[in-house]
Amino acid sequence: MSAIPQDFVRKTVELSEDVTRPFPRSRKIHVAGSRPDLRVPMREVSLTPTHTNEGQEENPPVLIYDTSGPYTDPDTRIDLLAGLPDVRTKWIEERDDTELLDGPSSAFGRARQHDPALAHLRFEHLRTPRRAKPGRNVTQMHYARQGIVTPEMEYVAIRENMRLDELRTDPRYAKVLRQHPGQSFGAALPETITPEFVREEIARGRAIIPANINHPEVEPMIIGRNFRVKINTNIGNSALTSSIEEEVEKMVWSARWGGDTLMDLSTGKNIHETREWILRNAPMPIGTVPIYQALEKVDGKPEALTWEIVRDTLVEQAEQGVDYFTIHAGVLLRYVPLTADRLTGIVSRGGSILAKWCLAHHQENFLYTHFAEICEIMKAYDVAFSLGDGLRPGSLADANDRAQFAELETLGELTKVAWEHDVQVMIEGPGHVPLQMVRENVTKELKDCFEAPFYTLGPLVTDIAPAYDHITSGIGAANIGWYGTAMLCYVTPKEHLGLPDKQDVRDGIVTYKIAAHAADLAKGLPGAQIQDNALSKARFEFRWEDQFNLSLDPDRAREYHDQTMPHVSHKVAHFCSMCGPHFCSMKITQDVRDYAESHRIENLDAAVEEGMKEKAREFRQEGADIYRAV
Amino acid sequence: MSAIPQDFVRKTVELSEDVTRPFPRSRKIHVAGSRPDLRVPMREVSLTPTHTNEGQEENPPVLIYDTSGPYTDPDTRIDLLAGLPDVRTKWIEERDDTELLDGPSSAFGRARQHDPALAHLRFEHLRTPRRAKPGRNVTQMHYARQGIVTPEMEYVAIRENMRLDELRTDPRYAKVLRQHPGQSFGAALPETITPEFVREEIARGRAIIPANINHPEVEPMIIGRNFRVKINTNIGNSALTSSIEEEVEKMVWSARWGGDTLMDLSTGKNIHETREWILRNAPMPIGTVPIYQALEKVDGKPEALTWEIVRDTLVEQAEQGVDYFTIHAGVLLRYVPLTADRLTGIVSRGGSILAKWCLAHHQENFLYTHFAEICEIMKAYDVAFSLGDGLRPGSLADANDRAQFAELETLGELTKVAWEHDVQVMIEGPGHVPLQMVRENVTKELKDCFEAPFYTLGPLVTDIAPAYDHITSGIGAANIGWYGTAMLCYVTPKEHLGLPDKQDVRDGIVTYKIAAHAADLAKGLPGAQIQDNALSKARFEFRWEDQFNLSLDPDRAREYHDQTMPHVSHKVAHFCSMCGPHFCSMKITQDVRDYAESHRIENLDAAVEEGMKEKAREFRQEGADIYRAV
Repeated sequence: MSAIPQDFVRKTVELSEDVTRPFPRSRKIHVAGSRPDLRVPMREVSLTPTHTNEGQEENPPVLIYDTSGPYTDPDTRIDLLAGLPDVRTKWIEERDDTELLDGPSSAFGRARQHDPALAHLRFEHLRTPRRAKPGRNVTQMHYARQGIVTPEMEYVAIRENMRLDELRTDPRYAKVLRQHPGQSFGAALPETITPEFVREEIARGRAIIPANINHPEVEPMIIGRNFRVKINTNIGNSALTSSIEEEVEKMVWSARWGGDTLMDLSTGKNIHETREWILRNAPMPIGTVPIYQALEKVDGKPEALTWEIVRDTLVEQAEQGVDYFTIHAGVLLRYVPLTADRLTGIVSRGGSILAKWCLAHHQENFLYTHFAEICEIMKAYDVAFSLGDGLRPGSLADANDRAQFAELETLGELTKVAWEHDVQVMIEGPGHVPLQMVRENVTKELKDCFEAPFYTLGPLVTDIAPAYDHITSGIGAANIGWYGTAMLCYVTPKEHLGLPDKQDVRDGIVTYKIAAHAADLAKGLPGAQIQDNALSKARFEFRWEDQFNLSLDPDRAREYHDQTMPHVSHKVAHFCSMCGPHFCSMKITQDVRDYAESHRIENLDAAVEEGMKEKAREFRQEGADIYRAV
Repeated sequence: MSAIPQDFVRKTVELSEDVTRPFPRSRKIHVAGSRPDLRVPMREVSLTPTHTNEGQEENPPVLIYDTSGPYTDPDTRIDLLAGLPDVRTKWIEERDDTELLDGPSSAFGRARQHDPALAHLRFEHLRTPRRAKPGRNVTQMHYARQGIVTPEMEYVAIRENMRLDELRTDPRYAKVLRQHPGQSFGAALPETITPEFVREEIARGRAIIPANINHPEVEPMIIGRNFRVKINTNIGNSALTSSIEEEVEKMVWSARWGGDTLMDLSTGKNIHETREWILRNAPMPIGTVPIYQALEKVDGKPEALTWEIVRDTLVEQAEQGVDYFTIHAGVLLRYVPLTADRLTGIVSRGGSILAKWCLAHHQENFLYTHFAEICEIMKAYDVAFSLGDGLRPGSLADANDRAQFAELETLGELTKVAWEHDVQVMIEGPGHVPLQMVRENVTKELKDCFEAPFYTLGPLVTDIAPAYDHITSGIGAANIGWYGTAMLCYVTPKEHLGLPDKQDVRDGIVTYKIAAHAADLAKGLPGAQIQDNALSKARFEFRWEDQFNLSLDPDRAREYHDQTMPHVSHKVAHFCSMCGPHFCSMKITQDVRDYAESHRIENLDAAVEEGMKEKAREFRQEGADIYRAV
C-alpha cells in the first residue's frame, strides 16, 4: 500500500488531467537518433488546407519545440507516484564511471529517509543515489573535452534542429521558411546544429547541458548563446503558503506552457520531500539555491551557517538529482560596503544571507573560500553551477553599479576555477536595469566570464508597475536575449507582491516564451520564423482554428475569440469581430490580391496610359458582388 | 427634459462612479501659468514617512503626469449630459481669427442634427461649430511660425515639466532625482521645457499639439520626440457589438489609466452621435479615420467612395471637434501590386479600402490627388494629420518591405505639402516587425519625413502569441519609443481575436504606459526616474501602501498583494508573502546596511587586518536578536 495519504493522491490525479491534456490538433512525435533509446520528442501541429480558386493547397504541419514532457503524450501512462520513465540511465551506465551508493551519503538525506514521521510525505519509489567512481569526472564538459559526443549531446542537437534540414528540402515549406537576416551581436548560430557542434560549445564552456546523473528522467536540453534562448521558471512553497501537491502541479504546468528549466525555491517545511516529488516527475532540469535549505537547518540565522552544513546540503541535493545549483560565491566581504549607498541595498535572498554571514564573522564568504571543494562535489554528479548574482540591483537606481560589476568580475574568476575542474557553469544576471543600460550587462558578462552562458532575471526596465512586472521584465528579457543571454528567468505578475498562482505562472511563462522567441528571431536563429509565418498565413486566410493551434497559448486565444464570437461557424467565417462581415481589411486585401494577380499587374505605371478604363470596367463587372459568399 | 432615455442616463451615471474614483492618497493639483485661466492639472501622490533609528524622515510627494481629466477631481461635478468644462474657448476667441457658424456646414452633419429619429441618441448641449475666418489659418503650427507662443504651448510646457525646476531646488527630492544618463539616438531633450522650446519644436514640425478649435474641452498635450513618449488608445463600436454608453465609459476609463490621446474607430451605426458624446466629454485629443465613416455612407462599397463624400465627412468631423485625422493618402495606385507577394497583403482597413478604390477606378488615390484641399480644411479648424500607413506589414514576414517603405517616402512628400499649409503632421508606422528591424523604421521615418512625430502601432515582435499581443507589441513599443517614436498606439490582449472589454483596455494601456516610460528612461528624459526611485525606496522600506499608490495601477497591485496577505497589518509588516517573516532579503539587507553604516565600514580591505575579530564580536552581541520586532 502506498504511504501517500489518499487525499494527496486523489487531488494530484485530478489536477494532472488538467495539465496533461494534449494541445489541440497536436501530436507528440519522436525523432530517432543514432541508437534506439535516443528518441527526441517534438510537438507536431497539423493544419487545415487553404482553399483557393484552383482547389486546396496543403499547409504542412508545424513542429514546435516541446518542453511538456510525457505529460502531453497520450501513449505514456502518467503516475506521479511512480515518477517519469527513465531516459538516461542506460547512457549513464554505459559510461561505466559511476557507482550506485548504499543510500544517501549526506547526513541530512539519511535522517530524512529514515524518519517515520515523514512517511506520509515521502516519495515512494526513491532511486538509489549514484556518484562518480573515485577519481572520475562525470560532467558533460569533461566528456566534451575528451572529444566524446554523449547521447545527451546528440539528443540536444536533434532537439535544437527541429528537423530543419528535412524541411528545407520539402517544397511545401518554402513559403514558411522565409526569414529575415538577424543581428546577432557576435553569436555564431550555425545553419544546422550537429552533435559535434554541441560538443565543441560545451567543451568551450559556451553552453551547458544541466543533467545530473541522479536525474535520469530529464529530457536533455542545452543552454548557450548559439542555441535557442531558453526560459527558466520558479516554484517554491514558503512558510506561509503552498503544499507539495501544489508545487508538483505547478511544475507540470510550467512544463506544459514552455518552461525549459525550473528552479525549486522552496523555503518552508519538507523541502527535501517536495524536491524528491518534483525531481522524480520533472522532464526538465531542476535548479535550486542550496543555501536556502541550509539556512532552514540553522533556524534561519545566517550567521550560524557553516561550510559543513552547506556541504552536506550540496551532497544531499546532488544525490536527489538537482541539475544546477545557484551558488552565491561572488558576494565577497569587501563588496558588501559597496551596497551601502544603494537605494535598495541587497535584494537577492542568497546575496543578503551571505553578506550577513560575512559581516557577522568578518571573514570571506565560505562559498568562495571552499569553491574548489564545491567543484569536487559538482563533478561527482554533474551538477552545473549557476553562479549567483547576490549583488544584483533591486531597482533602476542601482543598476550597473560597482557592487554588481565587482561581483560579476569575481564570477568570471570562479568560472575559470570551475572550468579547471571541467564543471559546467552559467552566470546569473540582473534584475532591474533601464533599457539603455541592458546591453552593457551582456557585453561585460561575455568578456569577464569568457562567454559562459548568461542567465538573467528579466531585467525589469522600470520599477513603477508592480502587478505587471512580467511585462516590465519581459521587455528587458527580449532585449537581453537578443544581445546574447542564453536563458531568461521568468517573472510573474505577482513579483514583488505575493506568490504566483497557476494563472500567474502561465502568464509569466508565455510572456517569457514571447521574449525568448523575439530574441531568437532578432538573432536570426535558423527556422525561428516558421511558426510566425504559418500562423500569419492562417490569420490572413481566416483559418481561425489553425491560428489558435499555432499560438503559444491556444486555449486563451480561442477563449478570447469566443468571448465575442462564440459560434463555431464564426471560426470559419471570412471576417472577425473587430470589423464585422462587411468591413474586413483581410477580406478586402484578399480581393485586391486576387485581382492584382489575376490581371498580372506588375508595372502599373506603364499600364496607366493604355488600359485604365478597360481594367476599371472589367473590375466593376466582376465585382458586382464584391464580397463573395463564404 | 432631456432627450436622453432614462436607461442611458442611469447607466452612465452608475458607471462613471467606477471610473472617476480618485486614486488612493492622490489629489489633483493645478499648476498656474501666466494667466488665471491657464491651470495645468497634475496628480500628487502623498507618501508616508520613513521610520529610522533617529526618528521620521519625510518622503516628499510625487507628481504624476495626469491624463485622467476632471474625472478624478472631486471638485469638479461630472455631468456627461452637459459635457466637460471648457478649457480653451477664451484662448481661441482672443485670437480673433475664427467665427461661429450657424450650424454644421457639412450636409451630413445638418441631416443628422435635424433627424427626429435620432433625438434619443443625440447629445443635448451641442456646441455651435467654429471655423477660421476666410483666409485665416488657425493651426498651432501657424502661430508657432509667426513667433506666437499660444496658451496651449505654455500649457504643455508646464505639463511636460512636472515642476521639475522646483523639485531640483528642494533638498527633500535629492535622493529620488538620481537618474542614469540616457541614450537618446539623436533626440534633444532639454533640461527644462520652456514655452519657447515648445513653440520652436512645433514651428519646426517636430512636435504637434492636436487641438481642434471645436474641441475646447481638451487639456492640451504635445506629441514629439523631445517630449515624454505618449500613448494612444482606441475605442470603437462595430456592427456586431458595443453601444454609445459603453464607448463613453471606455473613453473615461482610458483617460483614467493613462491614455494620452484616443482614436474613435467606430464603424457601426450612429457614428456621428457616438463621436459627439465622446468629444464633449473627452479631456484628451480625439482622432478618427474619416474614411471609415465615409464608407458607411456608401454602404460599405469602397469603389463607390468619392472625394465629395469624403470631403463632407472631413468637414462634418472637423466641426464636431476631432483633433486629428488618419488620412491614408500614401496608398498610391502603383504601390498596390507591391503587396501581391506579401504573406499577409494589406492589413490596414484604411489601406485596403483605398487600394480597392484605386484598382476599381484605375486612378490615383483621391486623398493624394486632393491633398491640398484636405490641407485647406485642416487649417480652418486645426485638425492635425496622422498620415496613415495603409501598407504597414501585417506579419513579421512583410516587415520593412518595399510597399511599406515606398508609402513612407510618399508620406514624407505629403508632410512637406502639409507644412507648406502650416498644418500639423504626424506619421503612422507599423505594425509587425522583428526586434532587429525596428530601428530601421525610426531612422527612415526621421529622415524621409523630416522628423515629423512618428506614431506607431506596437510593433509586434512576433506573430505567435495571439491573446498576448499587448505584450508582443509592448516589447516593440518600448524599443521603438526609445529610438525616437513620439507616440505609441496601444494594443490590447484581444488584438486579432475580438473587441476589447474594459479590462483589456486597462491591460493594454498599462502595458503601453510601461513601454512609454521605459522609453523615456532610456532616452534620459529629465525627471523620468523620480517615480521609479520613490517606488523602489518605498519597496525597500516596506512601505507597502506607498508602493501601491506609486504604481501605474494601484488597484491591481493592492489586489495582488492582498490575495496572499489580506490583512491590514501585513501592509506595514517588514516582510512579504514571498519569503515569510524570517527570510526576507530586504529585511536582511536593511540589517547589513544599518550595520555597515553604523560602523562606518568603507574600506573593508584595510580593516580586515586589525579589527575583524573585534567587529565580529560586537555584531554577535548586538545581533542576539537579529530580527528586531516590528
